[in-house]
Amino acid sequence: MGFEIERRFLVVDEAWRDAATRSRRLVQGYLAREGGVAVRLRLDDGQAHLTIKGPGGLVRPEFEYGIPAEEAAAMLDTLCAGRRIVKTRHDVPHGGLLWEIDVFEGPLAGLIIAEVELPAADLPLDLPPWAAREITGDERYANAALASLSAPPRG
Amino acid sequence: MGFEIERRFLVVDEAWRDAATRSRRLVQGYLAREGGVAVRLRLDDGQAHLTIKGPGGLVRPEFEYGIPAEEAAAMLDTLCAGRRIVKTRHDVPHGGLLWEIDVFEGPLAGLIIAEVELPAADLPLDLPPWAAREITGDERYANAALASLSAPPRG
Repeated sequence: MGFEIERRFLVVDEAWRDAATRSRRLVQGYLAREGGVAVRLRLDDGQAHLTIKGPGGLVRPEFEYGIPAEEAAAMLDTLCAGRRIVKTRHDVPHGGLLWEIDVFEGPLAGLIIAEVELPAADLPLDLPPWAAREITGDERYANAALASLSAPPRG
Repeated sequence: MGFEIERRFLVVDEAWRDAATRSRRLVQGYLAREGGVAVRLRLDDGQAHLTIKGPGGLVRPEFEYGIPAEEAAAMLDTLCAGRRIVKTRHDVPHGGLLWEIDVFEGPLAGLIIAEVELPAADLPLDLPPWAAREITGDERYANAALASLSAPPRG
């Protein structure tokens, strides 16, 4: 088990693009969420992981397991309908830390979120100029909540 | 991925006990359930598995992954509170098939359920005398529902 200490910010401009060192497309979906526990699938560059996140804001318990990519793809298609996100993730080094900037697609197009993982919760953070309002712990911007916003309208 | 074809029955007497070939204690819990998808953890004789079950009655899609037992135990303790079952499972061969008889403990004590996995959904079944009412597809007896019944009263 690990604990994830991460802060998140909305991103307001494109100034970070020139500093990106790596970009790749992520497909992630939620198999199920209950009582603050979320079970997430992610396909990233042909690698698939199943991640279990416990309740919490800044610090959440997290368990992660690699699984076969073709099984993850099958589950994303059949079991995560209406709970799936597609985004492009850009790695942007800043102030000695690696920031990850997620540019969302589909129904969430226009939304850009920067995340940074911290070695300690109280580390002073050198905020990059493109990081706007902090949304750490704001449940409306949790990936699990965003995945539900991606659901197609019921017809 | 596999599909599970299984029929389930309530058990009304103890006549099966002499025929049991193996017995062991199972602890299982649900990390989360949503939209017919259930993510289950099971500890069985020191082996731990994470199982994802899709929606369905007699035939359900199922994906299963082995995980470290100590991580499963930690998740059962911290993330499955109120969604956990403890039972003793007895293997009972009958009519060329392996029946599994689950004797529940704790808040579910008194409940005994027999399950049999079938090679084909339409296989005629030689019903053992101790198998009473069939509960295949009865959501009230789904393990996920039973796990919630195991929740301690909120105080």
